[in-house]
Amino acid sequence: MRARDLLADYPVVTLETPVLQAAQLLAEQDLPGLIVKNDDQLTILPGTEALRLAVPRYIMDDPALARVVDEAHADEFLRALGSRTVREVLPRERRELPVTDPDATVLELAALMARTRSPLVAIVDKGRLLGAVTLQALLDRMLGT
Amino acid sequence: MRARDLLADYPVVTLETPVLQAAQLLAEQDLPGLIVKNDDQLTILPGTEALRLAVPRYIMDDPALARVVDEAHADEFLRALGSRTVREVLPRERRELPVTDPDATVLELAALMARTRSPLVAIVDKGRLLGAVTLQALLDRMLGT
Repeated sequence: MRARDLLADYPVVTLETPVLQAAQLLAEQDLPGLIVKNDDQLTILPGTEALRLAVPRYIMDDPALARVVDEAHADEFLRALGSRTVREVLPRERRELPVTDPDATVLELAALMARTRSPLVAIVDKGRLLGAVTLQALLDRMLGT
Repeated sequence: MRARDLLADYPVVTLETPVLQAAQLLAEQDLPGLIVKNDDQLTILPGTEALRLAVPRYIMDDPALARVVDEAHADEFLRALGSRTVREVLPRERRELPVTDPDATVLELAALMARTRSPLVAIVDKGRLLGAVTLQALLDRMLGT
């Protein structure tokens, strides 16, 4: 059993996708994260990191501040997202990406998800995105459920 | 809208729960992670970290090794899990836990999930676990989907 046997089609967003549309895609299709395509490069945004799309940094860093922001203000943050795109919220730092090739083994996929803390691994063959393996698909396979 | 309005019942495992049973719970109920109860203390294991339950550390740390382990050996790793419990695989280090109280705001929940990279926040009131808020429940609320 290799990645090619576990992958499934997965929606892809671009740097120009509006943040709100990306968040709606996550919510409506119950996705564990986003695959962001930038020319030939892929970035994976796990769902929890995609939350950064919707929360201003100064609130992210200060739990006490998040507590005092009331409901009306929370709605304002969401409205303010309207004009922003995925480009503006992608992490800047370089780090290991959960991307591998179709020959990856089940154990390799599990180790990659655990190391990168991503519930989603993109499967790429010669620069072409074939699809993604999700944590749920992997667990189902490992446990035979 | 506060955490108390978003929380739902969530299954809880203990330190004595067999690893295999915990992994099956994740897979079968399509959970984003596990809540582990240890007397009065809670630990949250996001799904990607729960994968560490099933993958030996030396393979986790060495992608090349994971590649060469063949299918037959992968099955052996899973069989070897039979006698292990959640206690043996919980992270040792202390770190911020995705646990808050029922008064937490939507923004506070989002910031907590993003900081701790956990798609799951446990809601506790005076030491009693009330339930959990998942990333999906939070996104649905934030976007009104």
